[in-house]
Amino acid sequence: MKYLHTMVRVADLDASLDFYCKHLGLVELRRRDSEQGRFTLVFLAAPGDDSAQVELTHNWDPEVYTGGRNFGHLAYLVDDIYALCERLQAAGVVINRPPRDGHMAFVRSPDGISIELLQKGDALPPKAPWSSMPNTGEW
Amino acid sequence: MKYLHTMVRVADLDASLDFYCKHLGLVELRRRDSEQGRFTLVFLAAPGDDSAQVELTHNWDPEVYTGGRNFGHLAYLVDDIYALCERLQAAGVVINRPPRDGHMAFVRSPDGISIELLQKGDALPPKAPWSSMPNTGEW
Repeated sequence: MKYLHTMVRVADLDASLDFYCKHLGLVELRRRDSEQGRFTLVFLAAPGDDSAQVELTHNWDPEVYTGGRNFGHLAYLVDDIYALCERLQAAGVVINRPPRDGHMAFVRSPDGISIELLQKGDALPPKAPWSSMPNTGEW
Repeated sequence: MKYLHTMVRVADLDASLDFYCKHLGLVELRRRDSEQGRFTLVFLAAPGDDSAQVELTHNWDPEVYTGGRNFGHLAYLVDDIYALCERLQAAGVVINRPPRDGHMAFVRSPDGISIELLQKGDALPPKAPWSSMPNTGEW
């Protein structure tokens, strides 16, 4: 038995690939278009961690996706939580829970999927502006 | 960067551990009780696949968890999809999408988290009663 992936639905595939790949840093492993089913599946993973994937399902017929409380978040270990949050923020992503402690942050995907970022190894030393940045919204 | 876990909230921790561990086959790796936060976290993984985990969050103050459409499912590769579906069914779990093709099945956790089961390797030969079993509900 082996974990394969977590599937999330995405309303805007380009915006989602910008978020998950360009800004967050995942890489696209493969994709499948189904003319019959009118959907596109895109499988992503952290670089070098191909065995644990995220599957983006993009249904071609527009639908707005909202969340429920039974799903919580996806969590990733990251090399430099400050550098990643700077990159996300520069791309217009709200840092809902800034890494005040140099250890943990939360952001949301364009469809409201909560993503937990955890610093690899020991927490980084406190650093402005993160150390005094308040929370924004929920995550 | 590395995938760590998918977090799901569970209303009934015992029922969830029965589902995820006793019936589905995941194993508990560690748990943390927080008196201050009034929650219990339990980390699970497929046997031998400890690096890709599911985190169960059980808030001690009762809450009913429902789902949204942005989260789709968790997917696991399984050694024998018929044997697993038999075990789940015997435990009272509805097989929402039976493995008619010997390849894929869907069930739901007690809190409505959809779980995709995919047969390892080639699809198994068709087998009664699965081959003719209709779908039940959504997944």
